[in-house]
Amino acid sequence: MKRTSEDNQAARTATAGPARGMPPAEHESRLRRLITELRRRHLDGAVITHPVARFYYTGVASSAGTLWVDVREGPVFAVDFRYLFMARAALPFMPCELYKPGAAASRTPWLKRARQWRRCGYEGREPASALQARQEQLPGVEEWEDIDSLILAQRAVKSAREQRALRRAIAANDALLAALLPQLRTGLSEWDIRNLLRREADRFGQGEAFGTIACVGANAAECHHVPGDDVLEPGQPLLLDFGVKLDHYCSDMTRCIAPQRPRALFRKLYRIVHEANRSAIAAIRPGMTGQEVDAIARSHIGKAGYGKAFGHGLGHGLGLEVHEDPSFSPRSTDVIRPGMVVTVEPGIYLSGKVGIRIEDVVLITRDGCEVLTQSPHELVLPL
Amino acid sequence: MKRTSEDNQAARTATAGPARGMPPAEHESRLRRLITELRRRHLDGAVITHPVARFYYTGVASSAGTLWVDVREGPVFAVDFRYLFMARAALPFMPCELYKPGAAASRTPWLKRARQWRRCGYEGREPASALQARQEQLPGVEEWEDIDSLILAQRAVKSAREQRALRRAIAANDALLAALLPQLRTGLSEWDIRNLLRREADRFGQGEAFGTIACVGANAAECHHVPGDDVLEPGQPLLLDFGVKLDHYCSDMTRCIAPQRPRALFRKLYRIVHEANRSAIAAIRPGMTGQEVDAIARSHIGKAGYGKAFGHGLGHGLGLEVHEDPSFSPRSTDVIRPGMVVTVEPGIYLSGKVGIRIEDVVLITRDGCEVLTQSPHELVLPL
Repeated sequence: MKRTSEDNQAARTATAGPARGMPPAEHESRLRRLITELRRRHLDGAVITHPVARFYYTGVASSAGTLWVDVREGPVFAVDFRYLFMARAALPFMPCELYKPGAAASRTPWLKRARQWRRCGYEGREPASALQARQEQLPGVEEWEDIDSLILAQRAVKSAREQRALRRAIAANDALLAALLPQLRTGLSEWDIRNLLRREADRFGQGEAFGTIACVGANAAECHHVPGDDVLEPGQPLLLDFGVKLDHYCSDMTRCIAPQRPRALFRKLYRIVHEANRSAIAAIRPGMTGQEVDAIARSHIGKAGYGKAFGHGLGHGLGLEVHEDPSFSPRSTDVIRPGMVVTVEPGIYLSGKVGIRIEDVVLITRDGCEVLTQSPHELVLPL
Repeated sequence: MKRTSEDNQAARTATAGPARGMPPAEHESRLRRLITELRRRHLDGAVITHPVARFYYTGVASSAGTLWVDVREGPVFAVDFRYLFMARAALPFMPCELYKPGAAASRTPWLKRARQWRRCGYEGREPASALQARQEQLPGVEEWEDIDSLILAQRAVKSAREQRALRRAIAANDALLAALLPQLRTGLSEWDIRNLLRREADRFGQGEAFGTIACVGANAAECHHVPGDDVLEPGQPLLLDFGVKLDHYCSDMTRCIAPQRPRALFRKLYRIVHEANRSAIAAIRPGMTGQEVDAIARSHIGKAGYGKAFGHGLGHGLGLEVHEDPSFSPRSTDVIRPGMVVTVEPGIYLSGKVGIRIEDVVLITRDGCEVLTQSPHELVLPL
């Protein structure tokens, strides 16, 4: 029995429901652009097996499967018994074949074809041992080219459909925070708060996009603190860094939730970080490099005397993964382009005392950027 | 304010609480064994960066960091700003240094030392591009040896502490199922059931060990079905494949939950799969290969006429990851040893009709195996 769409609507007032994919046309168009790029680099083909890249080009969410892209003959998706059914349903635009471990090349036409290649693209993100096995499998290939930068650059600029998906994921994260705030109170441990947040992430999306960071008081000075048994005491601030995954796309936000009467040091550092966040966002223009954007926030924090207390990059791309290209960091040469979706998250961390980070997500536009995160910056714990 | 252990006990009647790690002595002893193995292979050192291997040898749960193992001088853990504090707290038994991207080798003594190495171990699981960068960083190394098989073989045989951790994780999964069963009823969708299960996984552990598989009716014929909007109807069986993660260790179990009056085909196939599960478990002895164990269940299903409907391996090792060595499969030459913890999960899948899988976890002992999974096989949906 399939639920009717009305049934589903009713069920989804309770939860976001299973992840919805993009139409096959979206994946087909991504794959077409990949093939154009491979041709431009004079590659005969490429082998794609990284789970995220595989999903990006096929829409098949599996833990296995190989996308063989022949620039002349087109793509073939080869997958084992466990996923064949799912893959065939998702891939009306390319052949989908059963992969049997150890099958002879003579019985796997896509492999026979790949053995004619001279120049082959591989993913640098894939295991070194997988590359070695592939090189033994395709001894005719004379040149192996790492195409990760090509794939990551394509993924960094979001299509119209992806931008809509990211807006929905970010709106869901805003709604999650609004639902969480009234549940917060002193006496809860970081772990309790993490559990409340995870429950909301299952309601507003399909769970967390990454392990929630919840820090009470001075624990916020560790920027990747793991939630533990420490309890939120009266007068302490709470730092939350969290994201919900909705329909395969990630959101990401950090907020410092102040106590009713924050201490002077918290207020001072909060203002500096807030100004750094605002000044970077105001300055972003397409054509800038990641290090230029980073430098704006970093110099602001540096001038205030806390340069050494901002030990991480300013931001990262966001999409199917929570960390993607481009990077806003002191060493990033990535060039910012319209359609990129990036976090802006300056911070100041004083060990044993206080940690502040304010993180928003922006969409790069033709003349600047649009802030997608709608949650207010100034948040105070309920009494 | 730290909670007292009594407070925590009270809080943990509600949830399992944050993941507890092993004492540093456990990691130190694992690392000592690794160094012995590296010496035996005449390696001067090894570089370990795979998140799971890194955690196995250090106990540091981070998304970054490099373990430099010099067989003469000992190990050094180098990690960036974000994790330094956490790593230093976890590692009383080795130096833990701040890694700054782009820092000169002259200022990183562990790198200077590694540049003296002639034979270096690397992880085949690590990205091909990372290996290439490492090779450029250590141009003096003449031989690079893939030590993944060494690490995976060490991880496959569980220490006494690991066996206890796995017993607890598996007991938590049994308790989870017992808590879930009374909540099941017709009218729930696969997605609803997945959400109920995830909530229990946050209560009995620190969440799912892998994405829960919940299949109503004929959807169980897809062995890696993604839970969707299909609703459990009266008379349909439900297949659940799920595991809770507790204190970093994974559990894994599959059960077919029968309707009150199952159809004859379901009963027949269930009996065959059940016998295959029992016969493999009865036959397991240390010294057998993975393919010998697999063949016992496979021949039973084959003789019953359903050989082609059992398209996956019989089982896999279980530990920090849900799929580890050894493998029970038609091509596995892994030799079974006492202390290994492995799943036994035969199945029969008839597309569009029915899918059966029964999965238990066993601990290999000196003269056979002990079944760790305690949940009954025969389960019936509540009326």
